[in-house]
Order: sequence, then structure tokens, then C-alpha cells
Amino acid sequence: MQEAQPLTENILAATIQQRAADSYKGTYGRVTLIGGNRNFGGAIIMASEAAVYSGAGLVTTITDASNQDALHARLPEAMFADITDFDQSRELIKGSDVVVVGPGLGTDDEAAAVLADVFNVIQSDQILVIDGSAITLVAERHLPLPETHLIMTPHQMEWQRLSGIAIDKQTVDWNLAIIDQLDATIVLKSHRTQVYTDNGVYENTIGTPAQATGGMGDTLAGMVGGFTAQFKDTDQAVLAAVYSHSAIAEKLAKTQYVVLPHQIVAQLPQFMKAHEG
Amino acid sequence: MQEAQPLTENILAATIQQRAADSYKGTYGRVTLIGGNRNFGGAIIMASEAAVYSGAGLVTTITDASNQDALHARLPEAMFADITDFDQSRELIKGSDVVVVGPGLGTDDEAAAVLADVFNVIQSDQILVIDGSAITLVAERHLPLPETHLIMTPHQMEWQRLSGIAIDKQTVDWNLAIIDQLDATIVLKSHRTQVYTDNGVYENTIGTPAQATGGMGDTLAGMVGGFTAQFKDTDQAVLAAVYSHSAIAEKLAKTQYVVLPHQIVAQLPQFMKAHEG
Amino acid sequence: MQEAQPLTENILAATIQQRAADSYKGTYGRVTLIGGNRNFGGAIIMASEAAVYSGAGLVTTITDASNQDALHARLPEAMFADITDFDQSRELIKGSDVVVVGPGLGTDDEAAAVLADVFNVIQSDQILVIDGSAITLVAERHLPLPETHLIMTPHQMEWQRLSGIAIDKQTVDWNLAIIDQLDATIVLKSHRTQVYTDNGVYENTIGTPAQATGGMGDTLAGMVGGFTAQFKDTDQAVLAAVYSHSAIAEKLAKTQYVVLPHQIVAQLPQFMKAHEG
Amino acid sequence: MQEAQPLTENILAATIQQRAADSYKGTYGRVTLIGGNRNFGGAIIMASEAAVYSGAGLVTTITDASNQDALHARLPEAMFADITDFDQSRELIKGSDVVVVGPGLGTDDEAAAVLADVFNVIQSDQILVIDGSAITLVAERHLPLPETHLIMTPHQMEWQRLSGIAIDKQTVDWNLAIIDQLDATIVLKSHRTQVYTDNGVYENTIGTPAQATGGMGDTLAGMVGGFTAQFKDTDQAVLAAVYSHSAIAEKLAKTQYVVLPHQIVAQLPQFMKAHEG
Repeated sequence: MQEAQPLTENILAATIQQRAADSYKGTYGRVTLIGGNRNFGGAIIMASEAAVYSGAGLVTTITDASNQDALHARLPEAMFADITDFDQSRELIKGSDVVVVGPGLGTDDEAAAVLADVFNVIQSDQILVIDGSAITLVAERHLPLPETHLIMTPHQMEWQRLSGIAIDKQTVDWNLAIIDQLDATIVLKSHRTQVYTDNGVYENTIGTPAQATGGMGDTLAGMVGGFTAQFKDTDQAVLAAVYSHSAIAEKLAKTQYVVLPHQIVAQLPQFMKAHEG
Repeated sequence: MQEAQPLTENILAATIQQRAADSYKGTYGRVTLIGGNRNFGGAIIMASEAAVYSGAGLVTTITDASNQDALHARLPEAMFADITDFDQSRELIKGSDVVVVGPGLGTDDEAAAVLADVFNVIQSDQILVIDGSAITLVAERHLPLPETHLIMTPHQMEWQRLSGIAIDKQTVDWNLAIIDQLDATIVLKSHRTQVYTDNGVYENTIGTPAQATGGMGDTLAGMVGGFTAQFKDTDQAVLAAVYSHSAIAEKLAKTQYVVLPHQIVAQLPQFMKAHEG
Repeated sequence: MQEAQPLTENILAATIQQRAADSYKGTYGRVTLIGGNRNFGGAIIMASEAAVYSGAGLVTTITDASNQDALHARLPEAMFADITDFDQSRELIKGSDVVVVGPGLGTDDEAAAVLADVFNVIQSDQILVIDGSAITLVAERHLPLPETHLIMTPHQMEWQRLSGIAIDKQTVDWNLAIIDQLDATIVLKSHRTQVYTDNGVYENTIGTPAQATGGMGDTLAGMVGGFTAQFKDTDQAVLAAVYSHSAIAEKLAKTQYVVLPHQIVAQLPQFMKAHEG
Repeated sequence: MQEAQPLTENILAATIQQRAADSYKGTYGRVTLIGGNRNFGGAIIMASEAAVYSGAGLVTTITDASNQDALHARLPEAMFADITDFDQSRELIKGSDVVVVGPGLGTDDEAAAVLADVFNVIQSDQILVIDGSAITLVAERHLPLPETHLIMTPHQMEWQRLSGIAIDKQTVDWNLAIIDQLDATIVLKSHRTQVYTDNGVYENTIGTPAQATGGMGDTLAGMVGGFTAQFKDTDQAVLAAVYSHSAIAEKLAKTQYVVLPHQIVAQLPQFMKAHEG
């Protein structure tokens, strides 16, 4: 029976590189985030904020047109694209280092069409983060996953839908049996989030119930996008994003009964600076 | 002649539970807030902010479509639904632990139709908070109240409309005579707010005239929603929300001539942490 | 030759009353602000913020429909009404203690129609603050002023248009000759703003060139609305608003090269508390 | 072989004048910023914020109508105009001291039509800052530059498009050969930004890779607009804007892994005050 290794603070200094003096925004990657229907616009906005505040070089948000105003009112640093304009979306995806799809995407036919198009366009040298509704769509519609560097960030119920493993049966061994077929890095979110990588299974030992509120997963997905766009070792980047997310929340929870996702995002630049290698 | 008991700080530690380590967002309840026509969008936004910042697990705001942008610009953590889409609203209500209806809803025929539909859909095991315009609608249109756990939050004029008791006759005895028929927890808002519960009548002894500004009631309604979604004893949750609202305002009023509703909301996570049991 | 008296800090304690414990939002007045066409929405938003943050009980903003989102994204405490809905506007004006008309209103025919309607509806026991574009409209279109408690807040060029007195001829004596006919309190804005009241002429001796930026006048107009809604002696309220506006700016200018209007507004609750009588 | 002189902190005190007591908003110039299509609205918003926070007297933003809400939600101090209303735009340009064109403008035919109209309307006594997409448009469509005080702010790739000099050949001598024909001040952005003026070539020696993120250029363009509107010596104003931008970023980067453009803007009033001459 395999065991998960504890994820420790060491991952931060090992991953978060001091920036080179002659770098430019292109050095830190293009991240495109896709999601946010008319009901769930906040999800893709929070994910986009996480990508920007973690230091991604250029961030574009492909979302329902009704979310354009709120996106720019909160985050003028992100570019906007209309999710119904497939031609524009394809160009943006092609030019990306990392694509995050799913936060607030929804699970209707339009969402499924968007996701299928992402899967068609994405190339094998790109990173694709599949989160939230997109995981449910993959599970429910049996969508074949594209050949690319895949990262999936299900919570336990989404993982049950995807893997067929009931929540109370989600042991490391059972999970690995499925993950070996998926050829993906899996971030299995729970109060002790596990990360399944090619180089082992890690378990987050920090975090706080003050994080138990809507939008936390969207924020983590955006951070995974931002970290993998910047840091070369993708597995490490995922692990560092997971650890940072919980560590910031723990710190805020010392004085807060609930920690809101946007409050974690706001702390990212200071946290990353304090822990760079 | 019955007397109201003073509401004291003890209610906080007795109510605000330390969160269990293995809890998740579902543990803290789904709150759906319904209101905000084209004129009064700010009211439902403030109520929704109060629900999120008090720690509710998942918050959805059903409101006029014209309020979608401002809602997400201020509060990406909330989900949005169009108040004219009754099918979607019904699904959302059914999936809720607590429904708050009324802030900024208005009193026209469309508002009445929304309220009637809420009354039809709500189930007996759910909590329904009726606030603001919704109270006026109930009074003016003689709407029969649904059988559910009812909380109503009238100010004195709204209570006059609902109970038929003129403001200067609103004594505990007279109020109880009506409340016994209503089978509801009543939060009667004044500069000494009273809370009528099955286990007695309580009177708030704190608060400040710096709170005398528009939106305070909307914020309190949202807090009642957030607290009752999280804390098992509903009466205690209502009392703790009322006390917290005034206590935060009192603290801010030490250095502010007027205290704005959104400023109370911003202090909620810190206040609740400082007073958890 | 008459001289203006210096306006001193004494006006603050003489005007800003400690709030009575049993007061409620109605005690602090209903203020309706009218302005903000599609181009100048920021002006009426800043004025509305000033009214809310100075402590007015209830604030409604009548403006172009395209400004609804930004108003509520910044200021959920204000209610919104569509400036093209004259019936609704009339009801709102009738129910107001103070009406502020002009910030960002523009000077086209639609703006003139709005202003004429305000003049028709306003009653003699109400306070009407005429600012910005509305002053230009009165001057250019020779609109007869309504019989009510009038306050006008022209800058020097607007006063030239209205009074016919060239800027370099705007002495106290010449100004008084016109003001006696107008039957209005005049706030003549310059780097040494003068206030012409029935009880004398006052000159502001504080202020800073860091205030020389767009939107300062809109903010002052909103403060005049908020102060006159709350404090019984209208002349004193106007003087206290003028003094507070400059005093806050002076304080901020100690560490800022430019002081933005919204930064003054944010300081109002603390400033007023520190100087209440 | 010519060498660039190092740009030093001395430029600040030499440029940023203490404001005269009797100045008014007109003293600090009218700046009109043009850009922001439906995809890139954040760019013109960030540029406009930079102009306002650096102290420009009056700022108008001509942009796609879909950006109106987000502009005013973030920056009520700016006025808005619809970029498709050429008549209104022409009047606004004519009344400006400084026009900034390009941030988020895009490079399609509509953008080209806007830019051509700016070039037609601008007068020889005005300052025109050409940034971002507008530089690409000039290069790709071989647009003749207008006779006015021109400032262009290309990054290295844009300068390659405009000058024909490949990035690795962009030496001071080669650059000067082209710039002599352009009759423009050139801000050539890289991690060591160079400024080519009539009075010499300067090189920025400060700055931080924490600035390597989208929107930095837009913010600098807005600052160049704000500084040149206020300070008489245009070359000095450009140099002071470039230096201030990097100096603020350096300071923030001491505690932040990434510095976001809007965070630099927020520090401008304090930074300028601390360094005024």
C-alpha cells in the first residue's frame, strides 16, 4: 500500500525562483483562463486574479460577455475575450503556455462545445489545467482527454464522477490505479489535498476550515495556472501552488473566522517574495 | 406584562463555533438571497456581502439582470441568477439551507410574483428570512406565510403594516399577541432592536446612531442568513447576528461619524474570530 | 466696501452635532442627486459618495442608465433611478429633503429638460443645490430659478456666466449686488472659496493646490447635500462642508502631490467624528 | 559611438514642481487617452488611472462603449467618450494639452481609422504620446506621423517594427539614425529603458523584474501623459515619468514577487510629493 508524502514548506524555496534581471513579461508565460458563464462569472474572475497576482506574464480571460465589466473593474491587468467567439479563442489558446479551463464554465451544451474545442486546439507542448465544471463535463460526457501536459484539480465528488471511485474508497492505491491511465497530474482537493505526480504522491498537511467557502477551488486553479506558467518543473509548480494557497489561508485564519478567496489572492505577491529560493 | 431580556455578549461565544478541521463548504450552508430590482440593486448586494463575509459556505444572489456586473465587481464569491428565470430560481431555492428574500425587491406586481413563488417552493425544513420590501408585500397583499422556519426582520413601520400595531403601541405584550399567530422569529428593528423567539424576547442594548443610514437593514438580513446557515440553534444564530451587527458598528463609531453598511461587513471575519466559542 | 470674514475651524463644532441615541435614518435626511450623462457618470457618482459618507440618511442617484453598474459597484448604499423616467424622478424629488442637481448633467436639450422639471417639482420647503452643468444651463438658457432654499456652487467661470461679472471683477461688492437678486446661498469656488449667505460673506482660508483636479467640485456639491440634509442651520451646514472639504485635502496633501476627490470622501466619517461639537 | 547617460534621481526634483497656491485644475492640463477596444479595455483604464494619479488636471478616456462601466467603477475622476463618435472625439482632442493614443487600441481597421483621425486633428502645439497598438499600426500601415510634439513609447519588438532595426542591433547609434528622421522623443522600453530626446540619450538604471507583467507599458504611457501635461519641459517630464515608474516598482518589489501596474499608480501621489523640487 502506497503512502502519500507530506508536502512541506521546502517546496516553496525549491520552486519560486528569484527573477532574472533581464527578464520580460514573456518570460513569465501566457495564461489563458476559460470559464464563467452568466451565472458563475465570479469563478473565472477569481481564477484570473490568482493567475495575475501569482506573477504570470500575460493573462487573458475567455468568458461570457456579461462578465467583461466586472472582470475589468476588478482586474484591468487581464485581457478579455468573448467565449462565443471560437476563432478568437483558438488563436488565444494556440499562443498560450498554460490554459486553465473550467471555473464557472457550467455543464450545459454550450459549455461542452467550448471544452471540446479547447481539447481540439491544445497542443502537446502546452499545459492544460482542467478544473470545476470541466471535470464534470469530462466525466458525464465521456470526453477523451487531449494529449498534452494535463493537470486536473477535482474535489472529492468530482473525482468520484471522473474515476468512478466513491469518496470513502478514494485511497492512494485506488486513485493511482485510475491516474496511471489518465496520464495527468491530479490535485485531489479535500481538507488534506493530495497531489498525484509522476514523481510521487504528496499530501498537504496544512490548511484551515476557514477556507471552507465558495471560490477557493477557482482561486487554486488560477494559482496552478500562474505557477506552472512561471516555474519550469511543472510538478513542483503545482505542489508550490497548493502549499502557498493553504499557507496564506492559515495565516489569515489566525485573525479571521472565514478567509475569502480574493483575500488569499491579495497576499500572493508578498507571500511569494518572502519564500522565494 | 412581559419584559425583554437584555441581549449580551455571551451570545457570541455560545453561538459562533470553532470550525471542525475536516469540514468543507457544504458544512456551512447554502444561502440564496432574492431581491434587488433595477432601482435597489445595492440592497441585495450588501445583503449578499454580509452572507459571504459571515462565513456561509455557498451564496447565490437572485436579482435583476442589471445588477450582475456590480455584484461580481464587488463580490466574485457570490453566484448570480436572473430573477425573471423562475425555473432556475426554484432549483436554487430547493437546494438552499437558507433563503433570504426582500432586500431591494420592491413592491410592484413583479416583486409580488417572485415572493409568491418563493412561498410556494420553500419546504418546511428550510429557513426563510423575510426582509424589507417582502414584509411590506406580505402586509399589503395579505399573502399567507409558508410553513417553514420563518424569520422576519421588520423595522417599526414595516411591523406596523404587518401587525396592525401602531409604532407607539408596539409593546412586548402587544407584539407577542400577534407573533404567537405568525409562528415566526421576529427581529423588530429600532434603536433598541428586539428579537422575539420561542425561548423568550431579547432586547439589544448596544448599537449607535452612527448606524442610522440606508442599507443597515439589508446588511443585517444577510448576516442573519449567513449565521443561521452555519449555526445549528437558529434562535441563537439570529441573536448573535443582531448583536454582532451592533457591536461592530459601535467599535467603528468610536472614530466615525457615520458607519456604512459595507464597513460592518468588512469587519465580520475578524470580529467572529475574536469572539468564537 | 464689504469684506469677507475668514471661515475658521470653529464652524465644525458649531455645526456637526453629536447624533441623538434614538435617531434613525430618517433623522438624517433624504438626499436625491441628479446628473451624470453617459460621458460624465463619474461626477454624479463622486457627488453621491460624498453625500453617503458625510452621513445623509438615504441617498438616491438619478442618472443615465449606463451609470447604474458603476454606481453600485462603488456605492451599494445609494439607490438608483433612470434619469429618463420623469414620473419616478418627480416622486423621488417630492420625497427629498435636499436635491442636488448638476454634477455631470451636461448642457444639451435633454439635460435642460431634466433641470426644468426639477425646477417645476421642487417645493419651497426643500433645499436645492445647483452645481456644475446646471449652473451653465441656468445662465445660458435664462431659466427662472424656483422659489425654494437655493444653494448654488459655481466656480469663477460659471459665476461669470451666471452673474455677468467677469472673473477679474468678482469682488464681494459686485457679487453681492447680483446675489441679493438671486435669493440664494452662493458658494463661489476658487482657491479661496467664498460663501455668500444671508448672515454674511465668508472666505475659506485653507485648502491646497493638490486639490486642483477634476471632480473636486462634484465632491463638494455632494457634501453640501449631505451636510444640509443633517444639520438644521443650512448656512452653517454649507460653511462646514466647504471647510471640511479643504481641511481633509490639506491633511492628505501633506503626503500626496495630488489629492483625488474619492480620497477626501473616504476620510469624511473620521474627520467629522474628530470635529463633532 | 554615442553613449546613453544614466538617468538619476535628480530628474525628480528638477521636474516635479511644488504647485502654486493659486493654481486650478486647468493649470495641470487636459489629457485625453484613446484606446481600449472590447478585448483590451483594461489597458486604457490603467493608462487613465496613471494620468489621474500623477496629477493631470482633467482626464478624458475615449474608448469602446463596453468599457464605460469598468472605467467609472475604478476611476470616477475620468470622463468617458465613445470611441465610435468621431465628432465628439475631435472636439476632445482639440481641447487637450496632451493626447495619449494606443493602449489597448488594437490593430484592426477600426483602430487604424481612429488613429488616422487623431493624426488629422492634432495640432502642432499639442503633445501626442503614441503607445502600444498605435505604434504597430504606424509601422504596419506606414502611416505618416503628424507634425506635433511627438513622444513614442515602443518596447523593443515594436521599435523593430517601426525602425526596421532588429532587437539585437538596437544600439544607440543605429537608433539615433532613425530617430533623427522621426523628430520624436522615443522611450525605448526594455529592462534598461532608454529615452531619446533632443538633448541627449538617457538610460534608466533602476527597475525590477517584478515589473515584468502585462499592463506596465500602459501605465507608463499614462504617466508620460500626466507628467507632460503638468511640467513645462517635456523631455524632463518624460524622463521623470520613466524614473518614477521604476523607482516605485523597485520599492514595492522589496516585499512583492510581482508588482502590478495598478499598485504603482496607487503610490504615485505619495512618491511625487516625497520627491518634489
